[in-house]
Amino acid sequence: MARIVMKFGGTSMAGIERIRNVAERVRREAEDGDEVLVVVSAMAGETDRLVQLCREAAALHDPSEYDVVVASGEQVTAGLLAMTLQNMGLEARSFMGWQLVRASGVHGNARVDAVESGLLDDALKSGTIAVIPGFQGISDEGRLATLGRGGSDTSAVAIAAGVNADRCDIYTDVDGVYTTDPRIVPRARKLDAITFEEMLELAGVGAKVLQTRSVGLAMRADLPLRVLSAFEDKPGTRVVAELSGADMERNQIAGIAADKNEARVTLTGIADAPGMVAKVISPLAEAGILVDMIVHAATPNTGSSDLTFTVPRASLAQAMAVIEQHRHEIGYSELICDDSVAKVSIVGVGIRSNPSLAATMFETLAERQINLLAVSSSEIKVSALIAEPDLDLAVRVLHTAFGLDSE
Amino acid sequence: MARIVMKFGGTSMAGIERIRNVAERVRREAEDGDEVLVVVSAMAGETDRLVQLCREAAALHDPSEYDVVVASGEQVTAGLLAMTLQNMGLEARSFMGWQLVRASGVHGNARVDAVESGLLDDALKSGTIAVIPGFQGISDEGRLATLGRGGSDTSAVAIAAGVNADRCDIYTDVDGVYTTDPRIVPRARKLDAITFEEMLELAGVGAKVLQTRSVGLAMRADLPLRVLSAFEDKPGTRVVAELSGADMERNQIAGIAADKNEARVTLTGIADAPGMVAKVISPLAEAGILVDMIVHAATPNTGSSDLTFTVPRASLAQAMAVIEQHRHEIGYSELICDDSVAKVSIVGVGIRSNPSLAATMFETLAERQINLLAVSSSEIKVSALIAEPDLDLAVRVLHTAFGLDSE
Repeated sequence: MARIVMKFGGTSMAGIERIRNVAERVRREAEDGDEVLVVVSAMAGETDRLVQLCREAAALHDPSEYDVVVASGEQVTAGLLAMTLQNMGLEARSFMGWQLVRASGVHGNARVDAVESGLLDDALKSGTIAVIPGFQGISDEGRLATLGRGGSDTSAVAIAAGVNADRCDIYTDVDGVYTTDPRIVPRARKLDAITFEEMLELAGVGAKVLQTRSVGLAMRADLPLRVLSAFEDKPGTRVVAELSGADMERNQIAGIAADKNEARVTLTGIADAPGMVAKVISPLAEAGILVDMIVHAATPNTGSSDLTFTVPRASLAQAMAVIEQHRHEIGYSELICDDSVAKVSIVGVGIRSNPSLAATMFETLAERQINLLAVSSSEIKVSALIAEPDLDLAVRVLHTAFGLDSE
Repeated sequence: MARIVMKFGGTSMAGIERIRNVAERVRREAEDGDEVLVVVSAMAGETDRLVQLCREAAALHDPSEYDVVVASGEQVTAGLLAMTLQNMGLEARSFMGWQLVRASGVHGNARVDAVESGLLDDALKSGTIAVIPGFQGISDEGRLATLGRGGSDTSAVAIAAGVNADRCDIYTDVDGVYTTDPRIVPRARKLDAITFEEMLELAGVGAKVLQTRSVGLAMRADLPLRVLSAFEDKPGTRVVAELSGADMERNQIAGIAADKNEARVTLTGIADAPGMVAKVISPLAEAGILVDMIVHAATPNTGSSDLTFTVPRASLAQAMAVIEQHRHEIGYSELICDDSVAKVSIVGVGIRSNPSLAATMFETLAERQINLLAVSSSEIKVSALIAEPDLDLAVRVLHTAFGLDSE
């Protein structure tokens, strides 16, 4: 007998017919003899409606009152799913986030500290299916706290870790994790398995199947995840600590990530002296701007150099303002920006041991005359900054080059 | 400095514009220097929407899951009102029903056992306005429990009693308690004051301004209520333990109640023997049918008699079935029913000390040839069962006869 957490997203919970479909899935799992906990999102659109009400009430609203309002959506679906399961003749009951999940940090974006598993253990041992609203818990002050948009994934993983579940299954409106965005590459392929690290890198560069926090949490808890379709009966993608067995046969590259949310900033003519990069990056970090892909190249024997980096496109105006404020201390000739850039990345555990993969990437892009504006790499990812109009072509040729195209 | 509970109904909370209007009312009360608690209903229509979702999920649903679903409506409005008050520069915060209100009994129709006033005291003493969702509390098992439809009035009164408030103001979509239904008598007059007992009798016969339970609770706690318009700035109606001062000048009759929700049942030819009434009424009581206005008159020297009583119109079919099941034990000639009857009542503390008021009622109806099908009376109420087509005329002539018409 296994203990399983099943998590259903907003699309799966949108309306009574879909909730019945979810209940049917849960019934099958329970009838397999497993102990089952279900974590649910609000009906699709409901959280947006509640957020909009808060905005209308007060442009700048107290996050703890925001939490009171938006947490209600998952409460409704939890009650509805519990009664639907009971109506099928199953033992089921809902628990509230404030009974189970201790959260702390910022209201509206709290983190899970602990899960009171005793109450759940009792229910599960007596054969009861526990239904729990995602996205919420209780703060140290005893008030409702929400975990930020997409937080139901994090709830599910935290609860799974808290009750020592054997697995956490994330049911969503896609049927698994793909080698790349199928809108760019129609021959993109669903992966049978992916590692936590690969999933984190793919999510970080724009493949939003799972909330990044939930993947990190599952990795630390060594809790296997599965990403599955809520609507079709297909195996989905397993997210695991390490590839083993048949999964080892998988391509060394798990996927190609595309990210258009990038802008490039270049400072020319800065002094070729120690501490110059810090003088630029520190004020940006203080302003909370995420800086990526830093390239600092000195022109030999000139005593001057250029610094290029990327920031999220939405932060570009703020980044330019911060740098201009510090113009005097930094001392640069020109400040140039470009928001028509994009990042393409290859992600795979194979990169760690096989340097030829990065070389293959650069050669493939060069063959198509795609210019590299900047390059960065981590242990299992190599990213290239390119002109945005080249992005789709770059993803397609890399997808083919690394043997990811489906037959 | 007084401590005031203000309660706002669903019509007053329907949308952000109306919530702003409510916040303006609360601001004025707080700026008068009073300690203010606000109890809110869900937005008009929201509870119906949630109840409908429960019905769709399962025709027969677990009341404790129903409570989880429907309690969410007031949670939303409490958060929205708190942030709206903060946006006006006031100190305000929401509390949840499960933090404050201990409830027990049946889920979906629980009663309030106690209010944890400590948390509220601290907030009020620091000048914070407390906003509380009505209609809900926490059960002995630590689960959400709702108080039944209209339960926000009961929440408000229970919380007011729990924090030793000086007054509980019920803001609603009417501007007070009227001498009768203004749709029947356009010259109906708003009462300045009414006693708890009169209010209970008026509510019991169909004047639904306040939930009956809340009036009983206020009476036991000796907590003065006011019924006021949420939309107009008018004095409303005070609900008090005893009329005093200028209120003593009020008419001895507070109002005329009209109730069309009646059906008459008559059994003819039953034995004129002890225990016959019980033989009829007991099986009805066992079936949960509310029996009212019992008239049992024996025809002298015949040994047989007729029994007439009323039941709510919705229970008539069930009542007839129950009696037919017991036909053999009861032994009657004919079973006759009539659902075209109505009840008109005069209500007022004056009835207790002035028997001529009942006489005036009967004379007034007789003058208009209105036939009395049954009569019942309590300490402060006299009711007559009449043909339904006569009801409007009866209400109008009684309203005039007792000097209730507005100038």
